[in-house]
Amino acid sequence: MKILVISAYPNRVGFNYAIKRKVLNNINNEKNEVTEIDLYEQGFDPVLRFDENNRRRDLVNEPYTASYRNLVKSADFFIFIYPIWWGGMPAIMKGFIDRVFVKGFAYKYNGISPVGLLGGKKAWIITTNDTPFLYAKIFYQDYGKVLKNQVLKMCGIKTIKHSQLYFVRHSTEKKRLDFLSTLSLFAKKI
Amino acid sequence: MKILVISAYPNRVGFNYAIKRKVLNNINNEKNEVTEIDLYEQGFDPVLRFDENNRRRDLVNEPYTASYRNLVKSADFFIFIYPIWWGGMPAIMKGFIDRVFVKGFAYKYNGISPVGLLGGKKAWIITTNDTPFLYAKIFYQDYGKVLKNQVLKMCGIKTIKHSQLYFVRHSTEKKRLDFLSTLSLFAKKI
Repeated sequence: MKILVISAYPNRVGFNYAIKRKVLNNINNEKNEVTEIDLYEQGFDPVLRFDENNRRRDLVNEPYTASYRNLVKSADFFIFIYPIWWGGMPAIMKGFIDRVFVKGFAYKYNGISPVGLLGGKKAWIITTNDTPFLYAKIFYQDYGKVLKNQVLKMCGIKTIKHSQLYFVRHSTEKKRLDFLSTLSLFAKKI
Repeated sequence: MKILVISAYPNRVGFNYAIKRKVLNNINNEKNEVTEIDLYEQGFDPVLRFDENNRRRDLVNEPYTASYRNLVKSADFFIFIYPIWWGGMPAIMKGFIDRVFVKGFAYKYNGISPVGLLGGKKAWIITTNDTPFLYAKIFYQDYGKVLKNQVLKMCGIKTIKHSQLYFVRHSTEKKRLDFLSTLSLFAKKI
Protein backbone atom coordinates (compact mmCIF):
# COMPACT_ATOMS: atom_id res chain seq x y z
CA MET A 1 0.00 0.00 0.00
CA LYS A 2 0.98 3.59 -0.47
CA ILE A 3 0.92 5.20 2.97
CA LEU A 4 0.90 8.96 3.49
CA VAL A 5 1.81 10.19 6.98
CA ILE A 6 0.63 13.75 7.62
CA SER A 7 1.79 15.26 10.90
CA ALA A 8 1.68 18.62 12.66
CA TYR A 9 3.72 19.46 15.74
CA PRO A 10 6.22 22.28 16.26
CA ASN A 11 8.53 20.75 18.85
CA ARG A 12 10.89 18.04 17.61
CA VAL A 13 11.53 16.77 21.10
CA GLY A 14 7.84 16.59 21.99
CA PHE A 15 5.68 13.51 22.47
CA ASN A 16 3.96 13.95 19.10
CA TYR A 17 7.35 13.45 17.45
CA ALA A 18 7.93 10.29 19.44
CA ILE A 19 4.58 9.07 18.12
CA LYS A 20 5.55 9.81 14.54
CA ARG A 21 8.90 8.05 14.86
CA LYS A 22 7.29 5.05 16.52
CA VAL A 23 4.74 4.72 13.75
CA LEU A 24 7.26 5.22 10.93
CA ASN A 25 9.68 2.72 12.47
CA ASN A 26 7.05 0.02 12.76
CA ILE A 27 5.41 0.10 9.37
CA ASN A 28 6.43 -2.87 7.24
CA ASN A 29 8.45 -1.26 4.45
CA GLU A 30 8.50 -4.42 2.36
CA LYS A 31 4.74 -4.39 2.02
CA ASN A 32 4.24 -0.63 1.96
CA GLU A 33 5.63 2.52 0.42
CA VAL A 34 5.67 5.39 2.93
CA THR A 35 5.68 9.12 2.20
CA GLU A 36 5.74 11.75 4.90
CA ILE A 37 4.37 15.27 5.04
CA ASP A 38 5.60 17.01 8.19
CA LEU A 39 3.72 20.29 7.91
CA TYR A 40 5.93 22.22 10.33
CA GLU A 41 9.17 20.98 8.78
CA GLN A 42 7.92 21.84 5.31
CA GLY A 43 6.80 25.30 6.46
CA PHE A 44 3.36 24.69 4.97
CA ASP A 45 1.34 27.89 4.51
CA PRO A 46 -2.15 27.08 5.84
CA VAL A 47 -3.94 30.22 4.70
CA LEU A 48 -6.54 29.53 2.00
CA ARG A 49 -6.84 32.46 -0.39
CA PHE A 50 -9.30 33.20 -3.17
CA ASP A 51 -10.95 36.30 -4.58
CA GLU A 52 -12.69 37.56 -7.71
CA ASN A 53 -9.58 36.94 -9.83
CA ASN A 54 -8.47 33.69 -8.28
CA ARG A 55 -11.78 31.92 -7.91
CA ARG A 56 -12.60 29.33 -5.33
CA ARG A 57 -13.54 26.86 -8.05
CA ASP A 58 -10.01 27.10 -9.47
CA LEU A 59 -8.32 26.00 -6.24
CA VAL A 60 -8.37 22.49 -7.67
CA ASN A 61 -5.58 23.66 -9.98
CA GLU A 62 -3.66 25.84 -7.52
CA PRO A 63 0.10 25.38 -8.13
CA TYR A 64 1.12 25.65 -4.44
CA THR A 65 -0.94 22.63 -3.47
CA ALA A 66 -0.44 20.53 -6.63
CA SER A 67 2.21 18.23 -5.14
CA TYR A 68 0.07 17.67 -2.04
CA ARG A 69 -2.98 16.81 -4.14
CA ASN A 70 -0.85 14.29 -6.04
CA LEU A 71 0.33 12.66 -2.82
CA VAL A 72 -3.23 12.49 -1.46
CA LYS A 73 -4.58 11.13 -4.70
CA SER A 74 -2.02 8.36 -4.99
CA ALA A 75 -2.19 7.29 -1.35
CA ASP A 76 -4.16 4.22 -0.24
CA PHE A 77 -3.84 4.85 3.47
CA PHE A 78 -3.46 8.05 5.50
CA ILE A 79 -2.01 8.44 8.97
CA PHE A 80 -2.81 11.79 10.59
CA ILE A 81 -0.80 12.70 13.70
CA TYR A 82 -1.54 15.88 15.62
CA PRO A 83 -2.41 17.33 19.02
CA ILE A 84 -5.90 18.57 19.79
CA TRP A 85 -5.66 22.29 20.46
CA TRP A 86 -8.84 24.08 21.50
CA GLY A 87 -10.99 21.13 20.52
CA GLY A 88 -9.58 20.85 17.02
CA MET A 89 -6.64 20.62 14.68
CA PRO A 90 -3.66 22.98 14.92
CA ALA A 91 -4.11 25.77 12.37
CA ILE A 92 -1.40 24.33 10.10
CA MET A 93 -3.31 21.02 9.85
CA LYS A 94 -6.68 22.74 9.47
CA GLY A 95 -5.20 24.80 6.64
CA PHE A 96 -3.87 21.67 4.95
CA ILE A 97 -7.46 20.41 4.84
CA ASP A 98 -8.82 23.82 3.77
CA ARG A 99 -6.33 24.16 0.90
CA VAL A 100 -5.78 20.60 -0.34
CA PHE A 101 -9.18 18.90 0.12
CA VAL A 102 -10.95 21.26 -2.26
CA LYS A 103 -14.11 20.82 -4.28
CA GLY A 104 -13.53 19.03 -7.56
CA PHE A 105 -10.61 17.15 -6.05
CA ALA A 106 -11.82 15.69 -2.73
CA TYR A 107 -15.58 15.95 -3.25
CA LYS A 108 -18.18 17.30 -5.62
CA TYR A 109 -21.87 18.08 -5.38
CA ASN A 110 -24.68 16.10 -6.96
CA GLY A 111 -27.47 18.61 -6.51
CA ILE A 112 -27.18 19.52 -2.85
CA SER A 113 -25.56 16.25 -1.79
CA PRO A 114 -21.80 16.02 -1.45
CA VAL A 115 -20.12 13.06 -3.14
CA GLY A 116 -16.66 11.93 -2.06
CA LEU A 117 -14.00 11.67 -4.76
CA LEU A 118 -11.39 9.87 -2.67
CA GLY A 119 -13.32 6.66 -2.10
CA GLY A 120 -11.53 3.39 -1.35
CA LYS A 121 -8.86 5.08 0.76
CA LYS A 122 -8.53 4.51 4.49
CA ALA A 123 -7.25 6.55 7.42
CA TRP A 124 -5.78 6.18 10.87
CA ILE A 125 -6.01 9.25 13.08
CA ILE A 126 -3.69 9.64 16.07
CA THR A 127 -4.38 12.54 18.42
CA THR A 128 -3.24 13.64 21.83
CA ASN A 129 -4.89 16.11 24.12
CA ASP A 130 -4.60 17.66 27.53
CA THR A 131 -8.22 17.17 28.52
CA PRO A 132 -9.11 14.47 31.06
CA PHE A 133 -10.92 11.54 29.40
CA LEU A 134 -14.29 11.90 31.11
CA TYR A 135 -14.36 15.65 30.65
CA ALA A 136 -13.79 15.25 26.92
CA LYS A 137 -16.36 12.46 26.61
CA ILE A 138 -19.10 14.17 28.56
CA PHE A 139 -18.79 17.80 27.58
CA TYR A 140 -17.21 17.75 24.16
CA GLN A 141 -19.22 15.35 22.08
CA ASP A 142 -17.36 15.95 18.84
CA TYR A 143 -13.97 16.34 20.45
CA GLY A 144 -11.37 15.29 17.91
CA LYS A 145 -13.93 13.70 15.64
CA VAL A 146 -14.26 16.53 13.15
CA LEU A 147 -11.51 15.19 10.90
CA LYS A 148 -13.12 11.74 10.80
CA ASN A 149 -16.79 12.66 10.60
CA GLN A 150 -16.88 16.01 8.89
CA VAL A 151 -13.88 15.88 6.56
CA LEU A 152 -12.68 12.41 5.61
CA LYS A 153 -16.12 10.81 5.52
CA MET A 154 -17.45 13.45 3.13
CA CYS A 155 -14.49 12.74 0.82
CA GLY A 156 -15.17 8.99 0.87
CA ILE A 157 -12.22 8.12 3.12
CA LYS A 158 -12.97 5.53 5.79
CA THR A 159 -11.31 6.07 9.17
CA ILE A 160 -10.55 2.57 10.41
CA LYS A 161 -8.98 3.65 13.69
CA HIS A 162 -8.78 6.74 15.89
CA SER A 163 -6.10 6.40 18.55
CA GLN A 164 -6.39 9.08 21.20
CA LEU A 165 -4.25 9.71 24.26
CA TYR A 166 -6.12 11.85 26.77
CA PHE A 167 -4.76 14.11 29.45
CA VAL A 168 -1.16 14.06 28.22
CA ARG A 169 -0.20 16.96 30.47
CA HIS A 170 -0.69 14.81 33.55
CA SER A 171 0.13 11.43 32.05
CA THR A 172 2.74 9.13 33.51
CA GLU A 173 5.76 7.86 31.60
CA LYS A 174 4.18 4.41 31.70
CA LYS A 175 0.91 5.61 30.20
CA ARG A 176 2.78 7.26 27.35
CA LEU A 177 4.97 4.24 26.71
CA ASP A 178 1.88 2.00 26.72
CA PHE A 179 0.28 4.28 24.16
CA LEU A 180 3.40 4.08 21.95
CA SER A 181 3.38 0.28 22.24
CA THR A 182 -0.24 0.11 21.15
CA LEU A 183 0.59 2.28 18.15
CA SER A 184 3.56 0.05 17.26
CA LEU A 185 1.36 -3.02 17.22
CA PHE A 186 -1.18 -1.40 14.95
CA ALA A 187 1.51 0.08 12.66
CA LYS A 188 3.04 -3.39 12.21
CA LYS A 189 -0.27 -4.78 10.97
CA ILE A 190 -0.76 -2.23 8.20
CA MET B 1 -17.79 49.62 25.52
CA LYS B 2 -14.62 48.68 23.76
CA ILE B 3 -15.60 46.42 20.89
CA LEU B 4 -13.11 44.22 19.04
CA VAL B 5 -14.21 42.86 15.66
CA ILE B 6 -12.16 39.84 14.55
CA SER B 7 -12.88 38.60 11.05
CA ALA B 8 -11.49 36.06 8.60
CA TYR B 9 -12.44 35.93 4.96
CA PRO B 10 -10.18 36.12 1.91
CA ASN B 11 -12.52 37.61 -0.67
CA ARG B 12 -13.35 41.30 -0.26
CA VAL B 13 -16.38 41.05 -2.49
CA GLY B 14 -17.77 38.01 -0.67
CA PHE B 15 -20.78 37.81 1.62
CA ASN B 16 -18.65 37.64 4.76
CA TYR B 17 -17.33 41.11 3.91
CA ALA B 18 -20.86 42.40 3.49
CA ILE B 19 -21.57 41.05 6.97
CA LYS B 20 -18.56 42.83 8.44
CA ARG B 21 -19.46 46.16 6.80
CA LYS B 22 -23.06 45.86 7.93
CA VAL B 23 -22.05 45.21 11.51
CA LEU B 24 -19.42 47.98 11.59
CA ASN B 25 -21.81 50.49 10.02
CA ASN B 26 -24.53 49.83 12.58
CA ILE B 27 -22.63 49.91 15.83
CA ASN B 28 -23.32 53.08 17.79
CA ASN B 29 -19.97 54.87 17.72
CA GLU B 30 -21.01 57.38 20.33
CA LYS B 31 -21.50 54.69 22.93
CA ASN B 32 -18.71 52.36 21.78
CA GLU B 33 -15.12 52.37 20.66
CA VAL B 34 -14.54 49.90 17.83
CA THR B 35 -11.27 48.25 16.81
CA GLU B 36 -10.99 45.83 13.92
CA ILE B 37 -8.69 42.89 13.30
CA ASP B 38 -9.14 41.65 9.74
CA LEU B 39 -6.85 38.62 9.82
CA TYR B 40 -6.52 38.29 6.02
CA GLU B 41 -5.85 42.01 5.50
CA GLN B 42 -3.25 41.99 8.25
CA GLY B 43 -1.59 38.89 6.81
CA PHE B 44 -1.75 37.21 10.22
CA ASP B 45 0.56 34.19 10.52
CA PRO B 46 -1.55 31.48 12.18
CA VAL B 47 1.20 28.93 12.81
CA LEU B 48 1.90 28.41 16.52
CA ARG B 49 5.56 27.60 17.12
CA PHE B 50 7.41 26.48 20.23
CA ASP B 51 10.32 24.16 20.97
CA GLU B 52 12.91 23.44 23.64
CA ASN B 53 14.39 26.94 23.32
CA ASN B 54 11.16 28.88 22.90
CA ARG B 55 8.98 27.20 25.47
CA ARG B 56 5.25 26.91 25.31
CA ARG B 57 4.92 28.58 28.70
CA ASP B 58 6.68 31.68 27.31
CA LEU B 59 4.13 32.23 24.53
CA VAL B 60 2.38 34.60 26.91
CA ASN B 61 5.24 37.03 26.19
CA GLU B 62 5.68 36.32 22.48
CA PRO B 63 6.43 39.64 20.71
CA TYR B 64 4.51 38.78 17.50
CA THR B 65 1.23 38.44 19.36
CA ALA B 66 1.74 41.18 21.98
CA SER B 67 -0.43 43.78 20.24
CA TYR B 68 -3.22 41.21 19.76
CA ARG B 69 -3.11 40.23 23.42
CA ASN B 70 -3.40 43.91 24.36
CA LEU B 71 -6.43 44.36 22.12
CA VAL B 72 -8.09 41.23 23.51
CA LYS B 73 -7.32 42.24 27.09
CA SER B 74 -8.74 45.74 26.77
CA ALA B 75 -11.88 44.71 24.87
CA ASP B 76 -15.25 44.37 26.61
CA PHE B 77 -17.07 42.81 23.70
CA PHE B 78 -15.88 40.61 20.83
CA ILE B 79 -17.50 40.11 17.46
CA PHE B 80 -16.16 37.11 15.55
CA ILE B 81 -17.08 36.89 11.86
CA TYR B 82 -16.02 33.90 9.75
CA PRO B 83 -17.27 31.13 7.49
CA ILE B 84 -17.47 27.54 8.70
CA TRP B 85 -15.06 25.49 6.60
CA TRP B 86 -14.96 21.76 7.22
CA GLY B 87 -16.95 22.06 10.42
CA GLY B 88 -14.69 24.67 11.96
CA MET B 89 -12.83 27.95 11.73
CA PRO B 90 -10.65 28.86 8.75
CA ALA B 91 -7.02 28.07 9.61
CA ILE B 92 -6.17 31.76 9.97
CA MET B 93 -8.85 32.17 12.67
CA LYS B 94 -7.95 28.89 14.39
CA GLY B 95 -4.34 30.05 14.49
CA PHE B 96 -5.38 33.37 16.01
CA ILE B 97 -6.92 31.38 18.86
CA ASP B 98 -3.94 28.99 19.07
CA ARG B 99 -1.41 31.83 19.26
CA VAL B 100 -3.20 34.61 21.17
CA PHE B 101 -5.39 32.76 23.68
CA VAL B 102 -2.46 31.14 25.45
CA LYS B 103 -2.09 29.80 28.95
CA GLY B 104 -1.25 32.49 31.48
CA PHE B 105 -3.09 35.07 29.39
CA ALA B 106 -6.50 33.61 28.52
CA TYR B 107 -6.70 30.86 31.15
CA LYS B 108 -4.67 29.12 33.81
CA TYR B 109 -4.94 25.86 35.69
CA ASN B 110 -5.95 25.40 39.29
CA GLY B 111 -4.87 21.83 39.78
CA ILE B 112 -6.44 20.10 36.77
CA SER B 113 -9.27 22.60 36.36
CA PRO B 114 -8.94 25.41 33.84
CA VAL B 115 -9.80 28.90 35.09
CA GLY B 116 -10.68 31.67 32.62
CA LEU B 117 -8.67 34.88 32.86
CA LEU B 118 -10.86 36.94 30.53
CA GLY B 119 -13.99 36.96 32.67
CA GLY B 120 -16.58 39.71 32.34
CA LYS B 121 -16.13 39.99 28.58
CA LYS B 122 -18.85 39.05 26.11
CA ALA B 123 -18.93 37.78 22.55
CA TRP B 124 -21.12 37.68 19.48
CA ILE B 125 -20.25 35.02 16.92
CA ILE B 126 -21.41 35.36 13.32
CA THR B 127 -20.84 32.39 11.04
CA THR B 128 -21.96 31.30 7.61
CA ASN B 129 -21.86 27.85 6.13
CA ASP B 130 -22.81 25.88 3.10
CA THR B 131 -24.50 23.04 4.92
CA PRO B 132 -28.30 22.78 4.88
CA PHE B 133 -29.79 23.65 8.29
CA LEU B 134 -31.26 20.25 9.15
CA TYR B 135 -28.17 18.37 8.01
CA ALA B 136 -26.00 20.53 10.27
CA LYS B 137 -28.38 20.18 13.22
CA ILE B 138 -28.87 16.44 13.00
CA PHE B 139 -25.46 15.14 12.01
CA TYR B 140 -23.03 17.70 13.30
CA GLN B 141 -23.87 18.33 16.92
CA ASP B 142 -21.01 20.70 17.61
CA TYR B 143 -21.11 22.39 14.25
CA GLY B 144 -19.78 25.91 14.69
CA LYS B 145 -20.01 25.72 18.46
CA VAL B 146 -16.38 24.97 19.19
CA LEU B 147 -15.46 28.64 19.48
CA LYS B 148 -18.27 29.26 21.94
CA ASN B 149 -18.14 26.11 24.04
CA GLN B 150 -14.56 24.96 23.88
CA VAL B 151 -12.64 28.23 23.60
CA LEU B 152 -14.42 31.33 24.84
CA LYS B 153 -16.21 29.61 27.72
CA MET B 154 -12.97 28.20 29.10
CA CYS B 155 -11.48 31.72 29.05
CA GLY B 156 -14.46 33.15 30.93
CA ILE B 157 -15.98 34.93 27.91
CA LYS B 158 -19.75 34.66 27.66
CA THR B 159 -21.16 34.27 24.15
CA ILE B 160 -24.43 36.18 24.25
CA LYS B 161 -25.40 35.47 20.65
CA HIS B 162 -24.42 33.13 17.82
CA SER B 163 -25.87 34.26 14.48
CA GLN B 164 -25.57 31.60 11.83
CA LEU B 165 -26.64 31.64 8.21
CA TYR B 166 -26.97 28.11 6.86
CA PHE B 167 -26.72 26.85 3.33
CA VAL B 168 -25.29 30.08 1.90
CA ARG B 169 -24.36 28.37 -1.36
CA HIS B 170 -28.02 27.92 -2.24
CA SER B 171 -29.44 30.92 -0.40
CA THR B 172 -31.62 33.48 -2.11
CA GLU B 173 -30.79 37.18 -2.27
CA LYS B 174 -33.74 37.77 0.04
CA LYS B 175 -32.51 35.30 2.65
CA ARG B 176 -29.11 36.96 2.69
CA LEU B 177 -30.57 40.45 2.95
CA ASP B 178 -32.83 39.30 5.78
CA PHE B 179 -29.79 37.93 7.59
CA LEU B 180 -27.97 41.25 7.17
CA SER B 181 -31.02 43.14 8.50
CA THR B 182 -31.13 40.95 11.58
CA LEU B 183 -27.44 41.62 12.18
CA SER B 184 -28.00 45.38 11.80
CA LEU B 185 -30.71 45.35 14.44
CA PHE B 186 -28.53 43.50 16.88
CA ALA B 187 -25.45 45.66 16.14
CA LYS B 188 -27.49 48.81 16.83
CA LYS B 189 -28.36 47.54 20.30
CA ILE B 190 -24.79 46.96 21.43
